[in-house]
Amino acid sequence: MNIKSKSTKTVGLPPGTMVHIGKRKKGKTKIEIMDFDKDRFEEKKAAGIEDCFSFRDSPSCTWINIAGLHELDIIEKLGVNFKLHPLILEDIVNTEQRPKSEMYGDYVFVVLKMLSYDEQKKNIKSEQVSLVIGPRYVLSFQEEEGDIFDPVRERIRTGKGRIRTMGPDYLAYSIIDAVVDHYFLIIDKLYDRISAVEDELISDPKPKSLQEIYELKRHVLTLRRSIWPLREAINNLNRVNSPFLSETFSVYLRDVYDHTIHVIDTIETYRDIITGMLDTYMSSVSNKMNEVMKVLTIIATIFIPLTFIAGIYGMNFKFMPELQWKGGYFIILGIMAVVFFLMLIFFRRKKWL
Amino acid sequence: MNIKSKSTKTVGLPPGTMVHIGKRKKGKTKIEIMDFDKDRFEEKKAAGIEDCFSFRDSPSCTWINIAGLHELDIIEKLGVNFKLHPLILEDIVNTEQRPKSEMYGDYVFVVLKMLSYDEQKKNIKSEQVSLVIGPRYVLSFQEEEGDIFDPVRERIRTGKGRIRTMGPDYLAYSIIDAVVDHYFLIIDKLYDRISAVEDELISDPKPKSLQEIYELKRHVLTLRRSIWPLREAINNLNRVNSPFLSETFSVYLRDVYDHTIHVIDTIETYRDIITGMLDTYMSSVSNKMNEVMKVLTIIATIFIPLTFIAGIYGMNFKFMPELQWKGGYFIILGIMAVVFFLMLIFFRRKKWL
Amino acid sequence: MNIKSKSTKTVGLPPGTMVHIGKRKKGKTKIEIMDFDKDRFEEKKAAGIEDCFSFRDSPSCTWINIAGLHELDIIEKLGVNFKLHPLILEDIVNTEQRPKSEMYGDYVFVVLKMLSYDEQKKNIKSEQVSLVIGPRYVLSFQEEEGDIFDPVRERIRTGKGRIRTMGPDYLAYSIIDAVVDHYFLIIDKLYDRISAVEDELISDPKPKSLQEIYELKRHVLTLRRSIWPLREAINNLNRVNSPFLSETFSVYLRDVYDHTIHVIDTIETYRDIITGMLDTYMSSVSNKMNEVMKVLTIIATIFIPLTFIAGIYGMNFKFMPELQWKGGYFIILGIMAVVFFLMLIFFRRKKWL
Amino acid sequence: MNIKSKSTKTVGLPPGTMVHIGKRKKGKTKIEIMDFDKDRFEEKKAAGIEDCFSFRDSPSCTWINIAGLHELDIIEKLGVNFKLHPLILEDIVNTEQRPKSEMYGDYVFVVLKMLSYDEQKKNIKSEQVSLVIGPRYVLSFQEEEGDIFDPVRERIRTGKGRIRTMGPDYLAYSIIDAVVDHYFLIIDKLYDRISAVEDELISDPKPKSLQEIYELKRHVLTLRRSIWPLREAINNLNRVNSPFLSETFSVYLRDVYDHTIHVIDTIETYRDIITGMLDTYMSSVSNKMNEVMKVLTIIATIFIPLTFIAGIYGMNFKFMPELQWKGGYFIILGIMAVVFFLMLIFFRRKKWL
Amino acid sequence: MNIKSKSTKTVGLPPGTMVHIGKRKKGKTKIEIMDFDKDRFEEKKAAGIEDCFSFRDSPSCTWINIAGLHELDIIEKLGVNFKLHPLILEDIVNTEQRPKSEMYGDYVFVVLKMLSYDEQKKNIKSEQVSLVIGPRYVLSFQEEEGDIFDPVRERIRTGKGRIRTMGPDYLAYSIIDAVVDHYFLIIDKLYDRISAVEDELISDPKPKSLQEIYELKRHVLTLRRSIWPLREAINNLNRVNSPFLSETFSVYLRDVYDHTIHVIDTIETYRDIITGMLDTYMSSVSNKMNEVMKVLTIIATIFIPLTFIAGIYGMNFKFMPELQWKGGYFIILGIMAVVFFLMLIFFRRKKWL
Repeated sequence: MNIKSKSTKTVGLPPGTMVHIGKRKKGKTKIEIMDFDKDRFEEKKAAGIEDCFSFRDSPSCTWINIAGLHELDIIEKLGVNFKLHPLILEDIVNTEQRPKSEMYGDYVFVVLKMLSYDEQKKNIKSEQVSLVIGPRYVLSFQEEEGDIFDPVRERIRTGKGRIRTMGPDYLAYSIIDAVVDHYFLIIDKLYDRISAVEDELISDPKPKSLQEIYELKRHVLTLRRSIWPLREAINNLNRVNSPFLSETFSVYLRDVYDHTIHVIDTIETYRDIITGMLDTYMSSVSNKMNEVMKVLTIIATIFIPLTFIAGIYGMNFKFMPELQWKGGYFIILGIMAVVFFLMLIFFRRKKWL
Repeated sequence: MNIKSKSTKTVGLPPGTMVHIGKRKKGKTKIEIMDFDKDRFEEKKAAGIEDCFSFRDSPSCTWINIAGLHELDIIEKLGVNFKLHPLILEDIVNTEQRPKSEMYGDYVFVVLKMLSYDEQKKNIKSEQVSLVIGPRYVLSFQEEEGDIFDPVRERIRTGKGRIRTMGPDYLAYSIIDAVVDHYFLIIDKLYDRISAVEDELISDPKPKSLQEIYELKRHVLTLRRSIWPLREAINNLNRVNSPFLSETFSVYLRDVYDHTIHVIDTIETYRDIITGMLDTYMSSVSNKMNEVMKVLTIIATIFIPLTFIAGIYGMNFKFMPELQWKGGYFIILGIMAVVFFLMLIFFRRKKWL
Repeated sequence: MNIKSKSTKTVGLPPGTMVHIGKRKKGKTKIEIMDFDKDRFEEKKAAGIEDCFSFRDSPSCTWINIAGLHELDIIEKLGVNFKLHPLILEDIVNTEQRPKSEMYGDYVFVVLKMLSYDEQKKNIKSEQVSLVIGPRYVLSFQEEEGDIFDPVRERIRTGKGRIRTMGPDYLAYSIIDAVVDHYFLIIDKLYDRISAVEDELISDPKPKSLQEIYELKRHVLTLRRSIWPLREAINNLNRVNSPFLSETFSVYLRDVYDHTIHVIDTIETYRDIITGMLDTYMSSVSNKMNEVMKVLTIIATIFIPLTFIAGIYGMNFKFMPELQWKGGYFIILGIMAVVFFLMLIFFRRKKWL
Repeated sequence: MNIKSKSTKTVGLPPGTMVHIGKRKKGKTKIEIMDFDKDRFEEKKAAGIEDCFSFRDSPSCTWINIAGLHELDIIEKLGVNFKLHPLILEDIVNTEQRPKSEMYGDYVFVVLKMLSYDEQKKNIKSEQVSLVIGPRYVLSFQEEEGDIFDPVRERIRTGKGRIRTMGPDYLAYSIIDAVVDHYFLIIDKLYDRISAVEDELISDPKPKSLQEIYELKRHVLTLRRSIWPLREAINNLNRVNSPFLSETFSVYLRDVYDHTIHVIDTIETYRDIITGMLDTYMSSVSNKMNEVMKVLTIIATIFIPLTFIAGIYGMNFKFMPELQWKGGYFIILGIMAVVFFLMLIFFRRKKWL
Repeated sequence: MNIKSKSTKTVGLPPGTMVHIGKRKKGKTKIEIMDFDKDRFEEKKAAGIEDCFSFRDSPSCTWINIAGLHELDIIEKLGVNFKLHPLILEDIVNTEQRPKSEMYGDYVFVVLKMLSYDEQKKNIKSEQVSLVIGPRYVLSFQEEEGDIFDPVRERIRTGKGRIRTMGPDYLAYSIIDAVVDHYFLIIDKLYDRISAVEDELISDPKPKSLQEIYELKRHVLTLRRSIWPLREAINNLNRVNSPFLSETFSVYLRDVYDHTIHVIDTIETYRDIITGMLDTYMSSVSNKMNEVMKVLTIIATIFIPLTFIAGIYGMNFKFMPELQWKGGYFIILGIMAVVFFLMLIFFRRKKWL
């Protein structure tokens, strides 16, 4: 995930200028239309953006999903036809927005971050999802085609749940819910990695663990950045009293809000745990150092004085009475043994042994 | 207690889908009904969930306790009969909710965490308790049958206190109070462990203490996670002006609120204490290292120069005048003694001895 | 002071059950009555609690002080006669409440913590003081008889100040003020200990200082716990518009509030100072270690190479030309001296000497 | 950037006294006037400040940009003619203001900080930009002439975007937007430096990295100081309901607000990352020390006992039986080898090798 | 500055009792009166406090400045004549108040802290300034006579600025402004010391720097304590709608408020910088230790094995074949050289050299 902010490409441009910022995709923009009411549903892949225009004022509920944001003219035509504010169009194609929700007279604009965990790179990937919720339609914009909305589509197709009987607000809720639900998968991945590092820290802390802790910390930081603002965004949505956002919507929104708080709570707990892991790591490094020092000190403290005694009787003075004694050698060995054992007792008293 | 969030099992399902998440229990769901008013009370174990339905509209106060959440059809039937919102049913069986309270037109929904301390595993166990407070009934849902509600039942049976003379709101308060009161037991257990570790830290800090501190920190983190949201939940309850929540309820709720704040306060204090313990541990490790280093330094600093002097007179040069002197050996021993005492004075000046 | 929470004795009991929690006192409960108005005052020690009842509705202002909370029937009788809510009675005898103020129709209930510094144990002692402020009376409850209210009594007796001319609200203010004023004594004691430790840290930090810092930190934590909630409690009192709390009361309450804020401010500053002391301690330990290491390194680095040189010429090879040289010994001594001075220069360059 | 506060030059002066504080510029103050409406535009460099006065009440939208704040009489004349409050004039020329927005009856006053990254000094440069937004004019004040407003001017000249069709509020928005957009450039620079230091920390941490981290931390601190207050300032602007700030302005302001929050978010994330880097650095220093200690300990622990053994047989006692043995030398060598390998096994067990 | 709280002298006294707390001054209290309106001004040193009374109801604006708070009867007489509340009089003479502002019916009471930097003791000195702002007068109370108000007096005398044409509220603002302006001088002093310590830390960190950092930290803590409450106090003043505080006052107050926020901002930044300095210091101590350890390790690791080799050939075994070899000595010297260079290569690989 990117901790860099808004690219410099837009600096100096007039507001409302559409500049696509994101991993540019070569392929064609995919436009999928689902139109449904209680009794029927229609699904089609639009050949051109013009296919969508007829649905704007149709009495049935319409979901237009745009996957691919690099063909600016498509977005612009859609914007003109659905009378979207230029600033909204700018935000849709600039994929470095913070999650937010904004109210305009005729529609509500929501920006979300879809997160996925990249197993290969052990990284968190972020994709921007924008929603425009109108009186009879929902427009959704993704950077790439994905399978995250498939369960929602399936529910529309099969008519399972309430989705077909309710309006665009419930559809929007379903989409937001699908995005937020995915956060739990990331949380689970993070949990697995945290657990693995924790086990390692307890059994055998290594410098590599530090690297891992640092990486986890950054993941948590980036998660926070994507999810904290969402809380505010959903709160905002809840405060709107727009004619096309029903009472029921509010009940469901509260549910998404609860999930978001749950994710935030978990992230904050992870953060505290990771901080604790760092402390543990530091302490265990200190402990290890302590142990190393003790070994050195014990060995040096025992043998340095003994070596000194040996050194004395290695001197070549002509007149050194002890050297002539018959048992001198053994007396000295005995003295050395006594020193040795006194040292051992000393260390045992200090609880170093 | 689980720091993982909502299981991935529900990702992609339509909202309101009941999926049981929790330690699946094999046994049969237990349904207990207590129906009472000022003058009489009736208690029975229901054979089937249908037995409860007649109590919904009875003028007396009814408490239906469901222990076991894995038989989804039971919960669902109850939900249909008592007209509970699908999202509520989803929350009841998914035991990884945050504590919360939500108002619906005809009833109030409360989620609590019941905490107990597992002496064997030295762990905190969390169980979800959900309450639906209606005009003339209280529904309570537990994961497993337990003895936590026994004092409340006993009070209903014996008619002790006000419980029989008051409505479902007071009953709900009694249940919430029983759950919150149990937190104090956990707090006490934690206190005992904290005291034990503190004593250890002062008398003899060991790497094992660090492990213990780390574990305590996690317990406190998980406690916070379960109890902080409860504060908000009770606050919410207090702000509702529902026709079936009486003025008196509010007075009692304030009491539970005070207890919750008390627990939170204590947890926060524990948190600060644990942080302080970590600092103390680190400092005492540093102190120990310092002491080790001092011993090494004193021994090495005294004997290395002496050994050098001995080394000099161990050289085999043909012409070394001192070696021929009669008292040379003793002069050198004297010099060594002088060096030794100078070193001692030096260390005493440095306050290392 | 106790960081344990509410005792487990009350878990499972119906709300409003009076259970005395506190250091149980054997002696008899002392009941003191002061009844006064502008012109006269009457003071007596009540033989039984019944003596108080007549004062409830007397037009003069009455202060009933109960010292000793273990004789529950006395408190209960008083409660029944003055129509106190059962939850209040429960709170009065359970001395592990947080400071708080609660409004009931006919009276205001306030819980305070009286703190005193135990010179012997170097500990902070906490005692609970509860007040019930009614239209024409003030009831105060203490755990033990003490001299803290003596100045207030003296003012009533002598008629000094405004106390006789004003109502029970001013009397209550005087009592609260007496309690809060005592906090400053604790603060002063803490200040003296902090200053002492600071001086020690600067002149000669010892492991014992760490112990002291840790203890101070805990004192500050417990102070915070007792005084922070008081701020909220006084604020609450100020927001009440009760017919028997006069305008003037509000002015005086603001004064107590200022004092409380002052104490909190000071405690927070102490907290920061103590954290700073810990950092200083850690740094000075590191510094000391550094110095120890330097001495070791200097000695070892100078003498180990010299000893090696001596070792070479202590070898017993048959053919070692240098040994035969006449000036060999002195040349080697010279080389050693050169090495020695080079080392000194090296250390001086490193600024270790 | 300057962390010093308001210069001491103004202490003691009456409020509203203009004192220029900033890097004094010798050159002449540049005055640029752009006057435009939907159909036409006029641009000129004013010879004297008097040239501006006629535009004050012209029905078209006028932008007067003053670059250079040291010629106080120019600012003063302008102030008198446009009836600016003396405190505003004081703030304009004292370039050490915090970002803020203030409402006066006839105009709105905004202070911003323009930041730029000085590649040479690796420093962040701050310049104050003040705006006075009136009913038909915008006055902007810069410390030095720069190119930051060129895109805005270009848009006026070419009539691109909405700028010509809208009022002074939109013009003010465009100027603020240009300033805020530039923050992203700084953010990008910081990101590059943070990435570079991170890479260094992982591959090879050096004391110099610490210096770099410290510097980055200060940059982040100064950024925070310049940008946090801006958030409040824009919020204030949004709350004004002034006749000359249109509804549309509010929509655009929200956009700038989003950008500001985005920058703040990023800065806070950087802050956390930098703190993490410091921890990583400290840990890696500890790790390195540990490694150094291990090498020392291994070498010393192996050779000190061996040297001691050699020392024993270097003693010159007359009677040392082993010395006479034929194989004595080889037996001792063998014992030394055994000790050596035992030590190796010991270290391998400790996982130090 | 004093971090001790309210002296114990007042504990137990009735509220409103005047007790002078502060560095008692022997000298006589100085009373200065300035009376002025648009057209004239009168200045005199009052012989007794009674001289002031006539000015209370004069239509012109009067400033009475009392320097010296130890002569309680003077303050009391003034209080009685101007009908000041006893609590206010208590606060005026007790110089350990927090900054605050309080509204009474007929006047506004403001407490400020005047700070000055004592160059000799390198300490921050705090003096209490109290203001009573009435409809036609301002009373100011200082502990000692000082020159801080001289610029205000000068402006009254010369009629420079608006001071003569405006009311007591503007006069009060001028006094407050003079006090707040002085904070910038302290801030500048602190900045100089911080810069000095920073330079030292980078070039050559010493234990003394730690002392200095600790002292700076305390200065910042005491500054915070004096200035944070001021923010609230000014805010309070702004919220009052008193008949004698004009609209204009509010504009000027906003200016003082901005300055206060500016000072607070700067203090908070200093705090962060000082924390960063402590980290830097600790890191650089660690780095130095690391360097010391490296030198020790390199020397010991090179020479200990060499000394061992020399030790072997210093043994006195009868049968040691190498000793008899002709080139034995040189072979051993060669082996030693090889070991030496292998070690050097090893250290270079480790990047320790």
